[in-house]
Amino acid sequence: MIHMKKTLLLGISTLLFSSFCLAAPKFNDKAIKQLQQNSQQSDLAYELVASLTTEIGPRLAGSENDLKAVDWAHQKMTELGFDKIYKQPVQVRDWQRVSASLQVSSPYQHELNVSALGGSISTPEQGIKASVVRFESLLDLQQANRQDVEGKIVYLAGKMERDKTGESYAKQVSARTHGAIAAAKLGAKAVIIRSISTASSANPHTGSLRYHPEIAKIPAAAIGVSSAELLDRLFSYDKGVEIALNIQNQEQNWKTSYNVIGEITGSTTPDEYVLLGAHLDSWDLGTGALDNGAGVAIVTAAAHAVKQLGQPKRSIRVVLFANEEFGLKGAKAFAKQHEQTLDNIVVAAESDFGAGDVWRFDTRVAHSALSFTDEILAKVRHLSVMRGHNRALGGPDVSVLAKLGVPVVNWLQDGRDYFDYHHSQEDTLDKIDPKNLQQNVSIYATFAYMVANSDINFRNQQDK
Amino acid sequence: MIHMKKTLLLGISTLLFSSFCLAAPKFNDKAIKQLQQNSQQSDLAYELVASLTTEIGPRLAGSENDLKAVDWAHQKMTELGFDKIYKQPVQVRDWQRVSASLQVSSPYQHELNVSALGGSISTPEQGIKASVVRFESLLDLQQANRQDVEGKIVYLAGKMERDKTGESYAKQVSARTHGAIAAAKLGAKAVIIRSISTASSANPHTGSLRYHPEIAKIPAAAIGVSSAELLDRLFSYDKGVEIALNIQNQEQNWKTSYNVIGEITGSTTPDEYVLLGAHLDSWDLGTGALDNGAGVAIVTAAAHAVKQLGQPKRSIRVVLFANEEFGLKGAKAFAKQHEQTLDNIVVAAESDFGAGDVWRFDTRVAHSALSFTDEILAKVRHLSVMRGHNRALGGPDVSVLAKLGVPVVNWLQDGRDYFDYHHSQEDTLDKIDPKNLQQNVSIYATFAYMVANSDINFRNQQDK
Repeated sequence: MIHMKKTLLLGISTLLFSSFCLAAPKFNDKAIKQLQQNSQQSDLAYELVASLTTEIGPRLAGSENDLKAVDWAHQKMTELGFDKIYKQPVQVRDWQRVSASLQVSSPYQHELNVSALGGSISTPEQGIKASVVRFESLLDLQQANRQDVEGKIVYLAGKMERDKTGESYAKQVSARTHGAIAAAKLGAKAVIIRSISTASSANPHTGSLRYHPEIAKIPAAAIGVSSAELLDRLFSYDKGVEIALNIQNQEQNWKTSYNVIGEITGSTTPDEYVLLGAHLDSWDLGTGALDNGAGVAIVTAAAHAVKQLGQPKRSIRVVLFANEEFGLKGAKAFAKQHEQTLDNIVVAAESDFGAGDVWRFDTRVAHSALSFTDEILAKVRHLSVMRGHNRALGGPDVSVLAKLGVPVVNWLQDGRDYFDYHHSQEDTLDKIDPKNLQQNVSIYATFAYMVANSDINFRNQQDK
Repeated sequence: MIHMKKTLLLGISTLLFSSFCLAAPKFNDKAIKQLQQNSQQSDLAYELVASLTTEIGPRLAGSENDLKAVDWAHQKMTELGFDKIYKQPVQVRDWQRVSASLQVSSPYQHELNVSALGGSISTPEQGIKASVVRFESLLDLQQANRQDVEGKIVYLAGKMERDKTGESYAKQVSARTHGAIAAAKLGAKAVIIRSISTASSANPHTGSLRYHPEIAKIPAAAIGVSSAELLDRLFSYDKGVEIALNIQNQEQNWKTSYNVIGEITGSTTPDEYVLLGAHLDSWDLGTGALDNGAGVAIVTAAAHAVKQLGQPKRSIRVVLFANEEFGLKGAKAFAKQHEQTLDNIVVAAESDFGAGDVWRFDTRVAHSALSFTDEILAKVRHLSVMRGHNRALGGPDVSVLAKLGVPVVNWLQDGRDYFDYHHSQEDTLDKIDPKNLQQNVSIYATFAYMVANSDINFRNQQDK
């Protein structure tokens, strides 16, 4: 069904883009220099993320604060002079954390730091007391025997490594997303995971989990890395480990949240647009400064910086997606609403990897457009950015569009510290270095400016 | 009263020490090398702190765990073959944390991370709602007008700097210890402080506070550094800040805890002893790995290492003090019980600054003994230790003895990370690098071995 539509779209796109010139245009170097200078000197992005985290704070999709953030975004875009600003309704879950506690009763008594995973059901009111069975990885659990797991609480002990790209996160996060399904399949009563984090910290890191419609839902929680290290040590006594886990959460009916979209309208081909994305929702434990207040601030400030130089030829649309954390609901709603006009998106980029500086430029564009991306890179190389590959997937939200054929770029940020804070109470403004934001804004602004003032086509012409 | 006793003691000491030789003895270099090699290769200290933090965990003075730790220490010293092991009763407070919460209601709503300071009274059951008045420092509060403070909650916002010696801690900690007195003097309802910590973290850092018998007791709490940064930002709106603070603690009658003392008995002058101190109690938020499980492990392992080389001439006494955190009660009890025999302490050293490596050697010894301390230093200089001054005060517990004339040394540890974790839930085993413990043990063992196998007198002869 989607493929048929895609073919149709590609047919239309042939008409739309057939007159496009593939040669890279010559840019006004002075303008780009000015743009970068303005961006490097502007506090706007920092002020935006400071405002969002201070005046709103945590904004779990569906919460009262989430709706406050929608109004906040609309208001800020208005103040910044975006040409068109509108909201797009998105249905989101209304899940709320109430409480979580975990006591080890054997071999030694301890109280561990624990938080429910996002979307977890509650334990019975009196909690669950059970012995714990430990697995090094989700794979080990998936290969376990039912008799070793049934009636127990599963503990997934996999460790994350520190790296620049989040490669280790991608590897370990399946314990969080799929742990409850794998454990329930074998009859476990609940699952706890070592936080998917690089911090040697007591703080638990939450994040979404999945349930399977045909497999029992069981409560799922993360313990802090320090608590996990302690638990590992308790296992080393070979005396068995018994715990009492109590998780209470609430889930009500679905609620309406919104994608907030702001446009700098183009002068020549206003329907064609560069999409700059980030997400407005956050987890509830911190104030969502890194995930994803920083991204919201970067893309908003970047579009504003371009506007300050004058109206671009193509439009720039900033899309602040609703509910990234609970299943990309905002991105999916956006894709659905725009399914007939996805070809209007020249290229999409998303900032959703904290507030580290950009160091690499990945793309997923037509071979014929690579020389243009080289030209973009040449303009930001002095900001310590290197070329990556042409197999980019886009950020989480934009990946939904990439799968539908939208060309994407990834401006990779240095994520070495990101998973120290991500999804925990440590995701707060004090973790952001304003200078890094300025570098990010400078790069996104350069990128948006160059694409919006060109007529480059990033799509494969042979597809048309 | 104390001065009279001291004079008497000094008189007695003249008789005791008059036959002492001041020249530095020649040491068996091979033995010292062996001692250091053994220490550098031994996991004993790490195993001890791992055992204490895993099998007991937090051990607030007066708690059930505190008494378990006393038994643990007795048992470990027995297993390690200490010659004499005994407990000395110490009366300690029985204060317990129950709960703490802090909501900002204006200018924007936030839930802050908060913990009661140790010893704080409770708020009324329904909490305290009040506007907040902010001071940069305790001094600013002390100089404030009553009308600016009365009926409000005082917020002390002073920041700690990262340094190697803890100098900044010494400067800032008065906000914690004296904030409640200064605030109550001016009619404040409660006091909250920015955690005395170098971590940019949401975690609150507790610690003891003082009340004055003639000034009203008010509730006192610490907020995490990230929460303090947020609060500072809320003040920047100039709209006033209102909070609701609820602290519930319990305090029962006094309880009995114990100093645990273990001796390696000397062959020649067993009554003379080198005192190696640390404290067994900890705060309740973490597992007391750095404060002061590491110290307990270092001094115990060092004494054991000396014993492994054969019986020293003088005795070595490891004193694991009770209740350092709540007013040095163990040290004071020790000083009182030994007041007639303090001159038997040749020199005292305490390890109570986390698990960083030793980098400096301070002393407070007679001028005539400095050449001997130089000789000690020469034996550990290859472990990256430099000479400090001769005005050492001793660690917290040992400072009680130093004030009574006992010669002391300080092996200064690198404390740059210590206050990231100290007194918070982050004080856990995973913060300890076993290699650093080995370096510490090697140094304490060398020091104890050299003093215990000498007849050096560290006291001023002109005092005698």
